[in-house]
Amino acid sequence: MKLENLRTLFNPESVAVVGATENQKKMGCHAIISVMESFKGKIYPVNPTRDQIFGLKAYPDPDSIPETPDLAILAIPRDHIYDTVRKFIDRGTRAFVIITAGFREAEISDGQELHERLKNLVESANAAVIGPNTFGMTDLRSGINASFTPALFQVKKGDIALISQSGGICHLLVPYALRHGIGFSKIVGLGNRLNVDFPEMLEYLAHDENTKSIALYIEGVENPKDMLQKIREVYVKKPVVAMKAGRFEKADKASRSHTGSMAGNYRIYVSALKQYGAVIAETLEELISYAKALSMQRPLHGDRIAVISLVAGLGMVASDTCELVGLRMAEFTEKTKERLYEILPPYTIRDNPVDLGFVANDPDVCGEVIEIVADDERVDGIVVNYIYSWSGNFLEVPADSIINAAGKKPLTACINYPPDIWDEVKIKLEENGVPVYATPEIAVRSLKALRDYGKLLSRE
Amino acid sequence: MKLENLRTLFNPESVAVVGATENQKKMGCHAIISVMESFKGKIYPVNPTRDQIFGLKAYPDPDSIPETPDLAILAIPRDHIYDTVRKFIDRGTRAFVIITAGFREAEISDGQELHERLKNLVESANAAVIGPNTFGMTDLRSGINASFTPALFQVKKGDIALISQSGGICHLLVPYALRHGIGFSKIVGLGNRLNVDFPEMLEYLAHDENTKSIALYIEGVENPKDMLQKIREVYVKKPVVAMKAGRFEKADKASRSHTGSMAGNYRIYVSALKQYGAVIAETLEELISYAKALSMQRPLHGDRIAVISLVAGLGMVASDTCELVGLRMAEFTEKTKERLYEILPPYTIRDNPVDLGFVANDPDVCGEVIEIVADDERVDGIVVNYIYSWSGNFLEVPADSIINAAGKKPLTACINYPPDIWDEVKIKLEENGVPVYATPEIAVRSLKALRDYGKLLSRE
Repeated sequence: MKLENLRTLFNPESVAVVGATENQKKMGCHAIISVMESFKGKIYPVNPTRDQIFGLKAYPDPDSIPETPDLAILAIPRDHIYDTVRKFIDRGTRAFVIITAGFREAEISDGQELHERLKNLVESANAAVIGPNTFGMTDLRSGINASFTPALFQVKKGDIALISQSGGICHLLVPYALRHGIGFSKIVGLGNRLNVDFPEMLEYLAHDENTKSIALYIEGVENPKDMLQKIREVYVKKPVVAMKAGRFEKADKASRSHTGSMAGNYRIYVSALKQYGAVIAETLEELISYAKALSMQRPLHGDRIAVISLVAGLGMVASDTCELVGLRMAEFTEKTKERLYEILPPYTIRDNPVDLGFVANDPDVCGEVIEIVADDERVDGIVVNYIYSWSGNFLEVPADSIINAAGKKPLTACINYPPDIWDEVKIKLEENGVPVYATPEIAVRSLKALRDYGKLLSRE
Repeated sequence: MKLENLRTLFNPESVAVVGATENQKKMGCHAIISVMESFKGKIYPVNPTRDQIFGLKAYPDPDSIPETPDLAILAIPRDHIYDTVRKFIDRGTRAFVIITAGFREAEISDGQELHERLKNLVESANAAVIGPNTFGMTDLRSGINASFTPALFQVKKGDIALISQSGGICHLLVPYALRHGIGFSKIVGLGNRLNVDFPEMLEYLAHDENTKSIALYIEGVENPKDMLQKIREVYVKKPVVAMKAGRFEKADKASRSHTGSMAGNYRIYVSALKQYGAVIAETLEELISYAKALSMQRPLHGDRIAVISLVAGLGMVASDTCELVGLRMAEFTEKTKERLYEILPPYTIRDNPVDLGFVANDPDVCGEVIEIVADDERVDGIVVNYIYSWSGNFLEVPADSIINAAGKKPLTACINYPPDIWDEVKIKLEENGVPVYATPEIAVRSLKALRDYGKLLSRE
């Protein structure tokens, strides 16, 4: 029942925004803007002191709304939250995003008590609640931005669901995603996790057809076992990438050592997360980059990597990174070597890592090399590195060959260029399942994430 | 003498481009475009088959140019290089950029021999040569793009000199720099290092008033001692960041192990580079990010870091990264703690890492917190994390306070936002010496680079 209400939460047909206002100093202002800019269904601003808000008719209280809204977004003082939720529940609303803070996270006496009362109320109705104490959530696919950040809806529609225990982390990753063209299905700030926590989201996302990979930013949860168990159930269907914060103890004591003592807690979390089926990310860039690769590519079953680069320097850095992360450079078959000797000139490195430098201006030859390498039975995965050089009308990325190669073997690409020049190529590659990154290091590490997932799957 | 000619190379008043053409399939086409788009002095295209190139009068050979050009850029078949250089030397030209490849790097019989002959020729005249086998160089400050990549000149003018053994790496870092607004004084592809190698560039840059930090991408040199010795001379004046590629042996042998064997060579290089005064970067992103911090900020003398964040999640990730890289969280004085308790509300973490979340909408209070922390005698360095949230007209970055704090203690910042929204803030901060990064991890690591440099200096 709660899961069904979670489905409604992400796919509402009508939405009430309680605390909606035109006063830009209030969260309710940004919340109503977010909804108006994203949502095609019926919107009901609730505010007892206004007749209209941004041209929409406003209602003084939940009872005065002419229908039962599927979803209620609350951005009002915390002391009004309980009664307001109760009124909506009495009317039949079963999905809530509670932005308001000041519950159990706060150093105030009745925060925990209020949390418990609210939890009992919503659980008794099987309602699903995101929050309280959250920016909210956005579902790019169904078209609802139930958050206080209108810009969240500028993010590209995609296949990654980002579930975060920190709103700030989402607000860092969203601009990162905007700049790198990374797409999401959903972005969810769990906040205080009143009754929708990691386990509920994992269970829901397992069946969400718009989500191909799940990225979790975890600070710490009360019942890690529940979360781990759900990861175990989900990861065989969809890859789960997890980043655990709180690596070191930061207790506010003078006893902190010079070197920082690694919190046993972190190690236990990470080894359990791996054990239960999560791919581990160590940085925010990795979290989002791995989720991207895992949403676009198949798992990698084998360690033998071919590196193909427009220039030798990139091949060197990519090869270094392969070996650093525990992948290894493929040894080409004699047949591959012979074919590379036939079509590449002597100036060029005609082995792994392959250097396309002196045929760079012939995209057909470059493409042929990429496909020859992809056909090599001793190659498990591929990293292609292309950089802009000379000028746009001189160099051409052999996009079709890269796409063909990615159809044969898991492949990631580092393609970097001055703004605009190859945007269309990048979009074409990504629409056809080739994840593109800005540096060879993160392209290789993302291929390693595909390998980590492959290893997890082959344990079964 | 050669150094004086290197000065001319970077500051020419007249430039010949040999091999200039309008045929976009030729490097000489892109080289002449690069010069025309960057250079305000006299330009002499040299091409025996054309009267004009892009509207400029063309000359059939070096002798027909009406004056002695300060710099000659060569993009012609390799078999014509020697004679052409000789003709320019006979006329008095003492600075060359030789783009043409096919010398000692190539698997062709006389490559090494031609290299030696050419070297003897230019050395006998004390001429300075960048290349052969290079994209060339660009000096953003003097205004000359002597390369086959016109886009290099789009990069922001700045204080970093990037000296690279790989052209491809420059062509990766340039788009990265374009997207992140990182500025350079010079970008140089050393190519085959005929007679301008790392030592010559280091010696030259030590006295280059436009350069505040030096970034080296090193694959491997014949005489590492010379390079190391120059680093030792230079680093006390200017920070040097080095990335060494070729971490692992990539010998084309079936004996490669599963895990990759670390090349002793790499370890020796890196420990020698450190010993002689370089700050070490392990990735391309680090190379450019560290060079940026070191060009803008003072060295950090102490490990005690204060983390101040708009949201707790970023503070957590930044604190984790501090301890991971060997920095430690500062223990504030009682005075600082008392002041933070006075001005921050109870919802907030009023200790290190400091959480500004609930005063985010009051830039004056946020700024006051930043300055209080900067005044704490137990704080050696600061990381400030700001993310966009709510909307642009709600949140305001307390730029003046961050700039004030950076005047008191070495400081780096992670500030991320949807495109455009805070561009002006970022520019203001960076113009005032605050290096801004896209993630808390790289902001902290860049602060660590300031610490590495501080340690190097205090050895003396």
